[in-house]
Amino acid sequence: MESADRPLAHAFASDAAIAAQFSMQAEIAAILEFEAALAEAQAELGIFSLEAGVAIREAVGRMGKALDHDDLRRGFARDGVVVPALVRQLREAVGAPHAASVHKGATSQDAIDTGLMLRLKPVVALLGERLDALLARLDAWTAEQGDSPLMAHTRMQAALPFTVAAKLATWRRPLLAHRARLAALPASTLAVQLGGPVGDGSSFGPQAAELSAALARRLALADAAPWHSDRTRILDIAQALAVLTGTLGKIGQDAALLAQSEVGALQLLGGGGSSAMAHKQNPVGAEVLVALARLNAGLAGTMQQAMIHENERSGAAWTLEWFVLPPMAEAAGAGLRLADALLTGARFTCRATA
Amino acid sequence: MESADRPLAHAFASDAAIAAQFSMQAEIAAILEFEAALAEAQAELGIFSLEAGVAIREAVGRMGKALDHDDLRRGFARDGVVVPALVRQLREAVGAPHAASVHKGATSQDAIDTGLMLRLKPVVALLGERLDALLARLDAWTAEQGDSPLMAHTRMQAALPFTVAAKLATWRRPLLAHRARLAALPASTLAVQLGGPVGDGSSFGPQAAELSAALARRLALADAAPWHSDRTRILDIAQALAVLTGTLGKIGQDAALLAQSEVGALQLLGGGGSSAMAHKQNPVGAEVLVALARLNAGLAGTMQQAMIHENERSGAAWTLEWFVLPPMAEAAGAGLRLADALLTGARFTCRATA
Amino acid sequence: MESADRPLAHAFASDAAIAAQFSMQAEIAAILEFEAALAEAQAELGIFSLEAGVAIREAVGRMGKALDHDDLRRGFARDGVVVPALVRQLREAVGAPHAASVHKGATSQDAIDTGLMLRLKPVVALLGERLDALLARLDAWTAEQGDSPLMAHTRMQAALPFTVAAKLATWRRPLLAHRARLAALPASTLAVQLGGPVGDGSSFGPQAAELSAALARRLALADAAPWHSDRTRILDIAQALAVLTGTLGKIGQDAALLAQSEVGALQLLGGGGSSAMAHKQNPVGAEVLVALARLNAGLAGTMQQAMIHENERSGAAWTLEWFVLPPMAEAAGAGLRLADALLTGARFTCRATA
Amino acid sequence: MESADRPLAHAFASDAAIAAQFSMQAEIAAILEFEAALAEAQAELGIFSLEAGVAIREAVGRMGKALDHDDLRRGFARDGVVVPALVRQLREAVGAPHAASVHKGATSQDAIDTGLMLRLKPVVALLGERLDALLARLDAWTAEQGDSPLMAHTRMQAALPFTVAAKLATWRRPLLAHRARLAALPASTLAVQLGGPVGDGSSFGPQAAELSAALARRLALADAAPWHSDRTRILDIAQALAVLTGTLGKIGQDAALLAQSEVGALQLLGGGGSSAMAHKQNPVGAEVLVALARLNAGLAGTMQQAMIHENERSGAAWTLEWFVLPPMAEAAGAGLRLADALLTGARFTCRATA
Repeated sequence: MESADRPLAHAFASDAAIAAQFSMQAEIAAILEFEAALAEAQAELGIFSLEAGVAIREAVGRMGKALDHDDLRRGFARDGVVVPALVRQLREAVGAPHAASVHKGATSQDAIDTGLMLRLKPVVALLGERLDALLARLDAWTAEQGDSPLMAHTRMQAALPFTVAAKLATWRRPLLAHRARLAALPASTLAVQLGGPVGDGSSFGPQAAELSAALARRLALADAAPWHSDRTRILDIAQALAVLTGTLGKIGQDAALLAQSEVGALQLLGGGGSSAMAHKQNPVGAEVLVALARLNAGLAGTMQQAMIHENERSGAAWTLEWFVLPPMAEAAGAGLRLADALLTGARFTCRATA
Repeated sequence: MESADRPLAHAFASDAAIAAQFSMQAEIAAILEFEAALAEAQAELGIFSLEAGVAIREAVGRMGKALDHDDLRRGFARDGVVVPALVRQLREAVGAPHAASVHKGATSQDAIDTGLMLRLKPVVALLGERLDALLARLDAWTAEQGDSPLMAHTRMQAALPFTVAAKLATWRRPLLAHRARLAALPASTLAVQLGGPVGDGSSFGPQAAELSAALARRLALADAAPWHSDRTRILDIAQALAVLTGTLGKIGQDAALLAQSEVGALQLLGGGGSSAMAHKQNPVGAEVLVALARLNAGLAGTMQQAMIHENERSGAAWTLEWFVLPPMAEAAGAGLRLADALLTGARFTCRATA
Repeated sequence: MESADRPLAHAFASDAAIAAQFSMQAEIAAILEFEAALAEAQAELGIFSLEAGVAIREAVGRMGKALDHDDLRRGFARDGVVVPALVRQLREAVGAPHAASVHKGATSQDAIDTGLMLRLKPVVALLGERLDALLARLDAWTAEQGDSPLMAHTRMQAALPFTVAAKLATWRRPLLAHRARLAALPASTLAVQLGGPVGDGSSFGPQAAELSAALARRLALADAAPWHSDRTRILDIAQALAVLTGTLGKIGQDAALLAQSEVGALQLLGGGGSSAMAHKQNPVGAEVLVALARLNAGLAGTMQQAMIHENERSGAAWTLEWFVLPPMAEAAGAGLRLADALLTGARFTCRATA
Repeated sequence: MESADRPLAHAFASDAAIAAQFSMQAEIAAILEFEAALAEAQAELGIFSLEAGVAIREAVGRMGKALDHDDLRRGFARDGVVVPALVRQLREAVGAPHAASVHKGATSQDAIDTGLMLRLKPVVALLGERLDALLARLDAWTAEQGDSPLMAHTRMQAALPFTVAAKLATWRRPLLAHRARLAALPASTLAVQLGGPVGDGSSFGPQAAELSAALARRLALADAAPWHSDRTRILDIAQALAVLTGTLGKIGQDAALLAQSEVGALQLLGGGGSSAMAHKQNPVGAEVLVALARLNAGLAGTMQQAMIHENERSGAAWTLEWFVLPPMAEAAGAGLRLADALLTGARFTCRATA
């Protein structure tokens, strides 16, 4: 249930399951997982003792309840990243003699970017599942009404009749491609980050590349050369979210146009009421899909500004990503949820038009 | 205190005092105030009885505790606006014989847009107060260090020496202009909306213009012809927020540049620490100001897309405003708060450079 | 006539009269006018001799034919601004003993920003004249068809009938406000820039403020404190262009919706043909207005990024303005031209709908 | 040589070789090639006679000189697309009895979108070649100075020393990935469009899919199901342009930061002069790269708005693409050209810093 402290419209643009992956809690958990896996990988490669790896993993296992959230918040406010404060707490939990092995050779960005990728994995999976459901709904709809005639419209004018199946295919095809795009992200785009303070991996010694690969295996992420100041993969994730939300907006736009009083080709169940005109059935869900698409289009452009990193690490551009990516992912998730609801209640009237 | 359910970076882009004005609670309260003032104004003009006006005002006074928030949320999800459900609850609270006088002649958009303006007034006032404090801080700083020499930089190169006073003046002048811009908003831009279902005021009868003026007086907003599908004033508010955040971002950019290790012209107290490099003092606040400016620049462009309203009322474009304006206002508020903190801890070193 | 070297779509987004003000020729002429007026103002204030002022004005008068454009282009490519090369050519034309009085105390940005303002004045005037014509057309249309009934539409649904006059008023009111906004620009926003190398005016000596005022009088621009690194006035010009183009896009959107085959409320003469469907009348002009509005909305957001100037002068942010402002102004001009053509051929059918 | 009719800054954002592919001439030629190849493919599949295919190909071969450009421009202004006028001219050139076989089953969008893809192929190839040259330059530079020490900077502060090789690797890696992305576009993203009037291919009869494949083979484009209203592939091209320009902007930002007077780590030959300060060497090329990156970031977001197509074909969204894609491609091309010039004249000073 939405809190009354949030804007009413938050209900339309938000997605609790996706928001959960961007919460402070989830971020801390992902960073701790990074630290544990890094320590295990370093132990595995003999960079330090197996005992140190075990001790750090165990401390991470115990940290959940022991975390001092206020200290972490103060640390974030001061440092712009939560890692220094979190590493301090983790080192304390590990204690002597292995405390110094925590976060060894790593920098905040390694932990944060890798932690983000760990959290994007379930986000992408969730979006994929919802897309599957939406595609199944389109298939069922096609089976039910596909042969029915429908007036096609080009350039805001009635064009020629085609079929409901042909119409639904124009929605289905891009969604199928977006599904494949999401499915492909984990194999290459969702990758570990391991560059150390200046991003060249030198702080990890000669085994830096091996260590990155081992870390990737443990975290079930793709391996990659350090990408501290190359945000292309973040932009590709934003692109996946934007084109998906864009297609949903296109579906919403179509639905609103087809459901116009004078067109009447599409019936939207549960259309919204008006405070002044009892006869109206407003295509609320369809309109919100358009709004979400325009929102994510704009955010995608803002995210592109974050490509311009200063030198080895830009605090400004990086922080901008943190502002923009979560609402983009939530908008995509909300769009899929709303699209499913919209299409559930929609049927072509298949009466002759124009 | 931030909830652990929010992203860590939310602390940088959010502002609790401003968020409060965009909450569901504040929106409901503002809409109820609109309904009460509208009823009183209609009673004043003899459109209906004084008793009806009193009854509605009293019911509004009693509504706070009696509101069924779940019903309102369901209503919003269904109708895309909260007004139909809220008016139903209010009419029930008013009861016979005056229930029908509630929201008489009005449409959802009248209530929502006017309600937004009522809430933007304290937002604008709060930003103004923070700007005053920031300007006072700049004045004090100028008094303290103004005569000190400072190297000016143009096109990323040391140019010629000028003074700290000249430097601070380049920050102060636009902030002063933004202060005047904010102060001018209530007199014209923050206006009532009263157009009725199709936006021409005809549902209010021949006294529509008088009624709008009376309503404006009661709500201490500017009067205006109906602007349902003309979002210029929303865009002008967005512009005020964007140029303010932009100037703060410019100050942040300057601070980060002047505080570079090799330049050392500005000392930022409380700079952020690094998890890997103990010697570093990262200009966190300065970087966040840049990120907020780029965020609001992008959101300003997204908001411009909302100018393209369909016909007498666009659900899609209007919903887009609701997604974009609150984060813009919060980012401006957060920027002022962070700028104040940044400048509090900043001093020019006034050592010779270049 | 458009050149075949340009994209076909250039015809829709361009405006020759406005483009002329952004040409290299116009920029050079405006900068030379700045240099002549500056010299005369300096002579007037006794900063140097009256003879020097006369000599520089005369040289400027002779420069038109004598300019070495290739040298200027090379200078621009090298320096990022044309002023150093242009000042060199002007000093040569002035010759001894007054050559050194050319551009005295000034910096490239003074010449370029003031020169831009000189060229924006006719741009703004031209847009205003076209707006006047469009407003007159709306008035005539209202006189002709104003009393006719028309179905109003809200949220993509037929709402209630109103009149053509009420409909046209929703287009007219924002255009009228934009007209006033354009008319107000010269008095305050279109201002001289005179800051000298580091933007504090010190290079002009104790008479800097007097000189700025004198220059403003001579150039018929507003006076202003130096605004080298405060781009608010450029953003306000962009805002004027964006909201104007946005309203034109809203009119286009309405026209396309009302002219839909199934709605048939608006007849657009000269609608576009289709290569495949001879029966179609595509609302080309209306669609292009929407496209121009979305273009300028995006450009407005991009322009906001230019607020973040580095220190006393940012080459990057300034260059970004040069990329963005001309297409925005042309799109606004093209929109007015296309809107006029669209409305010329449009008539409400005033047949009953829905 | 740039015309004096263009803005001076056009020299920085334009690219003649790329602009040539977006010219009216190139568009007409590509559409004619589509029509010829379509006719040949239809003849090959027995949809009409081989003679008709030959006649159309021959007419296309003769059209170059015979085109009535003024008629085409008038047609474009009226129809919003050039195809109806062009097909009329082509049919006239073909004459009886094969005139009716011209453009058979096709719609304007088939010709225009396929024609765009034909022209994007050399654009992509050209960008790829320039990228190769830039990568080669980076390799040579690495060979020359790679072992030299350099201070790394994170969050606008000196961090720790690394090497020039490590620095250049952070520029090289994303460019290499962008190179691969460009190289991959022709195989899948650059695809034929063949949907007919309502986008379902039905106008081509039962052989629609075969015909599309045959057309793709003849044009050396990828085959694809009709994508009239699914603009994902256009967005993916925009993404390729934006991330490329973004990386170039990041390189420019780095160069400007490293070349600061106080840092002095990078020497930029041919830096720009100042009209007021003879000692300055402004990093003009570096700044322009940043400006181009911010321009393309904004345009990428604007392009995303074009995902929201209305029904089977949106005139508005499609026209928006035509406004945005050419300047994006030119900005990418200009960026590569400027980056090459910048890096040619750049050398790390390799003096100790901070």
